[in-house]
Amino acid sequence: MLIRNASIVAGGRLLRDQNIAIDGPRISGVGPGIADESGDGEVIEGRGKLAISGLVNAHTHLAMTLFRGYADDMELMPWLSEKIWPLEAKLTAEDIRWGVKLGCLEMIRSGITCYNDMYYFMDEAARATKEMGLRAVLSGVLFDMRPDLIEDAEPFIRRWKNDDLIVPAVGPHAVYTCSEETLSRALDLAEKHDVMIHIHLSETRSEVESFAKNRGKSPVEYLDSLGFLSDRVVAAHCVWLSPQDVSIIADRGVNVAHCSISNHKLASGIAPLDRLARAGARICLGTDGASSNNSLNLFQEMKTTAIAQKCAHSRPDLFAAGEVWRMATENAYTAFRLDMGLRAGAIADLSLIDLKKPWFCPLADDNIVSHLVYSAQGGVETTIVGGRVLMRGGVIPGEEEILERAQEQFNDLLAR
Amino acid sequence: MLIRNASIVAGGRLLRDQNIAIDGPRISGVGPGIADESGDGEVIEGRGKLAISGLVNAHTHLAMTLFRGYADDMELMPWLSEKIWPLEAKLTAEDIRWGVKLGCLEMIRSGITCYNDMYYFMDEAARATKEMGLRAVLSGVLFDMRPDLIEDAEPFIRRWKNDDLIVPAVGPHAVYTCSEETLSRALDLAEKHDVMIHIHLSETRSEVESFAKNRGKSPVEYLDSLGFLSDRVVAAHCVWLSPQDVSIIADRGVNVAHCSISNHKLASGIAPLDRLARAGARICLGTDGASSNNSLNLFQEMKTTAIAQKCAHSRPDLFAAGEVWRMATENAYTAFRLDMGLRAGAIADLSLIDLKKPWFCPLADDNIVSHLVYSAQGGVETTIVGGRVLMRGGVIPGEEEILERAQEQFNDLLAR
Repeated sequence: MLIRNASIVAGGRLLRDQNIAIDGPRISGVGPGIADESGDGEVIEGRGKLAISGLVNAHTHLAMTLFRGYADDMELMPWLSEKIWPLEAKLTAEDIRWGVKLGCLEMIRSGITCYNDMYYFMDEAARATKEMGLRAVLSGVLFDMRPDLIEDAEPFIRRWKNDDLIVPAVGPHAVYTCSEETLSRALDLAEKHDVMIHIHLSETRSEVESFAKNRGKSPVEYLDSLGFLSDRVVAAHCVWLSPQDVSIIADRGVNVAHCSISNHKLASGIAPLDRLARAGARICLGTDGASSNNSLNLFQEMKTTAIAQKCAHSRPDLFAAGEVWRMATENAYTAFRLDMGLRAGAIADLSLIDLKKPWFCPLADDNIVSHLVYSAQGGVETTIVGGRVLMRGGVIPGEEEILERAQEQFNDLLAR
Repeated sequence: MLIRNASIVAGGRLLRDQNIAIDGPRISGVGPGIADESGDGEVIEGRGKLAISGLVNAHTHLAMTLFRGYADDMELMPWLSEKIWPLEAKLTAEDIRWGVKLGCLEMIRSGITCYNDMYYFMDEAARATKEMGLRAVLSGVLFDMRPDLIEDAEPFIRRWKNDDLIVPAVGPHAVYTCSEETLSRALDLAEKHDVMIHIHLSETRSEVESFAKNRGKSPVEYLDSLGFLSDRVVAAHCVWLSPQDVSIIADRGVNVAHCSISNHKLASGIAPLDRLARAGARICLGTDGASSNNSLNLFQEMKTTAIAQKCAHSRPDLFAAGEVWRMATENAYTAFRLDMGLRAGAIADLSLIDLKKPWFCPLADDNIVSHLVYSAQGGVETTIVGGRVLMRGGVIPGEEEILERAQEQFNDLLAR
């Protein structure tokens, strides 16, 4: 496949008239005049388009897309106990299937090519994701009250460890739902199979304060005392951190999945990204679930992250566009061990965006990253994962049927 | 014209299968089976679409769309003095023309049918806006250093006071750039011609503190002491308000144009919308200029406003979707004296949005306003102002030429 005469971003600047050759699941060359050697004869016209390597959604619960708009504007505990948990108690694999497919549609439309998820019925989530063609790091959620889920963690890894799109991981929910034994088991499993660990960490003030009161240390200090923290860990949220917590996270190489919109909407707080960044921590961006966002769009997440941090610190010069763009791309590629980027040899996970839209005008060589972070609205028109075209010219085959089935599934869930 | 079988929002709920009949510049009927009596035979299929009455952008400087992405991530004073003011000093009417047209394209694409603007060369802005077909409340910016602008304020009102789309107003810039004499002149003029007043008010902490230090009162108290404040006034920003300021604004009926994204990006602060709302003040939403946003999209503004206020007060139940939706619609209709809404007799300013998109799924009768505020991304496909179709099925006639001309104009401005 050849993408012909597209623009790309290189070193923060716009580079025009680049060909991108794709051979099977990988990029075989990028540059002016590069030829396609795959022999499949497929050409995508890139003139007037920007090619970007895929965005990575570092924390979500994709099946919860089925709960979008079901309950908003509520205090956290009534929201969970009166609305979310009762629905979750009724979930079936079929709900997961259509919730995941619905979520994939939105991510394909906003240039997300890989997502990191922790939830229920993850074999079904994996199958649905593969049918949609996206890449995902998936873990079944683990907590003490569900020994059956803990028992299935290792078989789940074995079932998916050699897949081309699905990367299995281990997902202990949080320190307040998992005992030391569960956490240790999760860690052992991750080390044994060399897979990642996905955990919620220090999301709300009350959670951190009550943990400290009972245990005499912060959740981060506690996990560190178990030898749990390393660059194998993706820690979602990290909103309430002491200076000591920040140092530990940076020193251990923990990957932070920052979820700005969810943290704002649930009023959890504003994460100390400035201290994390200064300490050298790796920060990625996640949407969280659509029940607390209510979008799955990293363009929104980039803009909100940048402007919220500027405002929180009264410093408009902090968190410049380029730094936030890296969070959604390169930082996540490193965190999730993805061989990605617009270069020969990388996996062919990328999108094309139409530059002939008002929000990209005026265009200069040095404002493309600003436009991506502050004014692009995520309207991607072509998305490719592993060399397979998932959306072309704004059309995703089968989208209408998925929307109808997801709607029916939601109606069915409510009536159950 | 007849819009057939569209859905609408009524009392916060989704109402399906509604016809909307438009006769000339006004809506002649809304309801199931309503017929078109205009005789023009024009039909727009509304099935699967949501019709919304137009959003109103309560504060912007539209020509500054030409500066989008030109300078970001800078401290306020260097941003103004090194970047924005030098460009503004070189502006010509031709720059205004193409900046305004570019801004209109983005607003048409996001369902904004009317905007409130204060800037330079406003006759040119008015002509460009009329060519694009949008409605606007326009005022030339007034400040002491430019007596020529002050002299032209009344002639500008006379030139435009009988226009069908342009509503002239008076635009004293702010209390720190306008003397008492200038402010009084602006007030007299507004009262004489019964037009609105558009002013920046208490945007930054340093501006309010230095005013208080020199004058012994807040900018709000000062304006009130001049008899300046009434429901004729649209006050942009209102970020740094004392409890006394909040009472004055509410008691005088001043219309607040809240600009959440701009206030965040420039790190100005978070406006006390909770206190303003409790005091009964009328709050509208503005994008500010694209040089400090960098979008002209009220869907983004609604989401950011809601989630930022929730987070600032640690109260996820505050600023529910319906309240924020009213800020972008009904509050602004009252503020700007616009006879708008989806009902017989109202001016025909409305948009159609495609409901068959992932971000509107699942759809229930009672989650449509949540979807509009929290998950819709502003991708409107048809926009109508005063009964004239400005965009149909995503196509705005002449868009590509405007994008090219705006780009050339920006290049020319930089080279000047």
